[in-house]
Amino acid sequence: MPLLGLLPRRAWASLLSQLLRPPCASCTGAVRCQSQVAEAVLTSQLKAHQEKPNFIIKTPKGTRDLSPQHMVVREKILDLVISCFKRHGAKGMDTPAFELKDFDIAGQFDPMIPDAECLKIMCEILSGLQLGDFLIKVNDRRIVDGMFAVCGVPESKFRAICSSIDKLDKMAWKDVRHEMVVKKGLAPEVADRIGDYVQCHGGVSLVEQMFQDPRLSQNKQALEGLGDLKLLFEYLTLFGIADKISFDLSLARGLDYYTGVIYEAVLLQTPTQAGEEPLNVGSVAAGGRYDGLVGMFDPKGHKVPCVGLSIGVERIFYIVEQRMKTKGEKVRTTETQVFVATPQKNFLQERLKLIAELWDSGIKAEMLYKNNPKLLTQLHYCESTGIPLVVIIGEQELKEGVIKIRSVASREEVAIKRENFVAEIQKRLSES
Amino acid sequence: MPLLGLLPRRAWASLLSQLLRPPCASCTGAVRCQSQVAEAVLTSQLKAHQEKPNFIIKTPKGTRDLSPQHMVVREKILDLVISCFKRHGAKGMDTPAFELKDFDIAGQFDPMIPDAECLKIMCEILSGLQLGDFLIKVNDRRIVDGMFAVCGVPESKFRAICSSIDKLDKMAWKDVRHEMVVKKGLAPEVADRIGDYVQCHGGVSLVEQMFQDPRLSQNKQALEGLGDLKLLFEYLTLFGIADKISFDLSLARGLDYYTGVIYEAVLLQTPTQAGEEPLNVGSVAAGGRYDGLVGMFDPKGHKVPCVGLSIGVERIFYIVEQRMKTKGEKVRTTETQVFVATPQKNFLQERLKLIAELWDSGIKAEMLYKNNPKLLTQLHYCESTGIPLVVIIGEQELKEGVIKIRSVASREEVAIKRENFVAEIQKRLSES
Repeated sequence: MPLLGLLPRRAWASLLSQLLRPPCASCTGAVRCQSQVAEAVLTSQLKAHQEKPNFIIKTPKGTRDLSPQHMVVREKILDLVISCFKRHGAKGMDTPAFELKDFDIAGQFDPMIPDAECLKIMCEILSGLQLGDFLIKVNDRRIVDGMFAVCGVPESKFRAICSSIDKLDKMAWKDVRHEMVVKKGLAPEVADRIGDYVQCHGGVSLVEQMFQDPRLSQNKQALEGLGDLKLLFEYLTLFGIADKISFDLSLARGLDYYTGVIYEAVLLQTPTQAGEEPLNVGSVAAGGRYDGLVGMFDPKGHKVPCVGLSIGVERIFYIVEQRMKTKGEKVRTTETQVFVATPQKNFLQERLKLIAELWDSGIKAEMLYKNNPKLLTQLHYCESTGIPLVVIIGEQELKEGVIKIRSVASREEVAIKRENFVAEIQKRLSES
Repeated sequence: MPLLGLLPRRAWASLLSQLLRPPCASCTGAVRCQSQVAEAVLTSQLKAHQEKPNFIIKTPKGTRDLSPQHMVVREKILDLVISCFKRHGAKGMDTPAFELKDFDIAGQFDPMIPDAECLKIMCEILSGLQLGDFLIKVNDRRIVDGMFAVCGVPESKFRAICSSIDKLDKMAWKDVRHEMVVKKGLAPEVADRIGDYVQCHGGVSLVEQMFQDPRLSQNKQALEGLGDLKLLFEYLTLFGIADKISFDLSLARGLDYYTGVIYEAVLLQTPTQAGEEPLNVGSVAAGGRYDGLVGMFDPKGHKVPCVGLSIGVERIFYIVEQRMKTKGEKVRTTETQVFVATPQKNFLQERLKLIAELWDSGIKAEMLYKNNPKLLTQLHYCESTGIPLVVIIGEQELKEGVIKIRSVASREEVAIKRENFVAEIQKRLSES
């Protein structure tokens, strides 16, 4: 367990200024607004009474035009992510507002439990988004470093070699080897030793195998990492997600700040509806342990254990978009449930009375801001905006004391007693 | 009806740069994040096929520290506001992201219908927030200007006198009169004529009365304003909110850009729980018609009718806070429904299995990240964080194949068959 200590506020300031970039919008012709990348940082600093850690939603990376349809899709994705975080006890989900209460208090937790929860959260989100089959590669930074050491990589080359290894998901081993030997001056036999490791991936059995590995088992760091991975797999099995996780020694994650377990989720196949061009989106979620990152702000060098995961909402957004484009799915930009229409002139007053009744019953309702709109215009509006129900009031209905309820999809109309029409609509909405 | 025309995009850019200020956070010790002021701008530019206008949520004014409790309260207020906007067909509710599709398209609507809806929205929000009794003052900028003209105020003094009139909600008439005459050099008899008007307020009957007013009825502008107010009151009556609206000739709203109907909501009494100090919060919502604001960006000088309302979330926030402080109400910062606990050592595995079942059933669940936490610590955590239910697994439960479900409030415990415990929890949650 790392030692824990108090952090100076300026340290948090600098850390947080990295974590938090406020959304902004500039208006150059079309309105551009930064698209969201939700990042949950689950800190493991717990109070004496074991306060639940926070999730922090990190705000946008990159920008793109967002049409109302885009916005709705993106909001649905973010809602799913956020509801998953809340299911796991998240607080301070507001973007960009969030809270930091539980930061200058030291505490401790037992190994791998939050790490396992992070992976569970990843699985829940990726399953929930129905992006198709996925796999989460895990490794441990200490195993990577240990592997380099026992293979005879000079420490000065660790970083350079690390970045080569990272390319194995896009490049063949022979090309990576070539880069390491020719471009980065690594001895061929060292490269080959690395090759034996980085082409291995599997489940907990591979962890056991590496424990027996004559070279790796001699390295203290690597053994620590393997020990944690073994415990992690135990918890992942109890969570019922071990089959989604692959111990992959080629996973290096260039990021310097990871210090322990690292993971990266990849889609095994992009959804391939007919006519959809294959997508290469790379990893859609990633994370790991970065105790050091916080520690480096501490004058005493104390470390604060942190595990974090980040969901590539932008990439996921792109996949969902592509799929919807293929399917020709329509996205509603409003939630309006009922439209108030009339076939005759001079029925504004009746429409206003009806729509007020609907609003007062909590029903989402619209009407046109016209005294005498054409019925066709009103029905077209419902079809173009996807409003499912129309209530129609005209001379005949007024005379008979009824309201016509029309289903936009089936175009069926039924007359309901005026005093019952709200209840009837609530019934239909609850059934749909 | 104002003429309508296309607006150059740069015009919208400049308008929107005023409307939209991105939230941001700086980290100086405590994290400060800008508190929200939700502003809905309902534009009346409709497509040929009568596209529904947008609401635009305007982002923060002012800053303040937000604790997690504050955040939860503020989020609840914003949720109520936003759900009301959605009930009225709002789209692009994302903050700060929003959409402007339906802005470079001209259209038109019939008078006072969106204005009436804005006032209905105000009433729904203020009633929903249960802030106590409120009143919405309405007036029309053209009536104010007409009043000044017929009273003999030189046009050069309109603005100065307007700002004096605006003070009538805080100052007595004689003091306002003194300011107008002594400080602003208005002829005493002119001031007295104004006094006869600005001390009037009432319902639609006052509108009728002003139609008959010998002076005001001579002024074309004022008559236009009165005509619109009469129509507005007709619609407000149909919406069932006329009793909440008061025609008040002292309402001037210093803002230059209002061109027609103006309104301002005030709390008639702040909630006065025992021991609560009286609050003076001024107006909690306001708005009006500002066709000119947009028009002034248009090279052709074309006007685009706009009605807008803004909810003083910051002030409302303060009121709700004060009330809760008095009541000593506790705010939950997480939504966790179930806590997984154990009274014995070495039950981490069972806890992990149980919590995974809960998560997989969509239940919000937490446990402590400890191998062997003390039962008292676990129960204290539930009480301090307001988690309503605890599931307990120990040796006895394991032996009998049951799970204990404990109600944190009543401290009652019942044993449920292991295979039924999720269903039982779902039943309890749906009942609560």
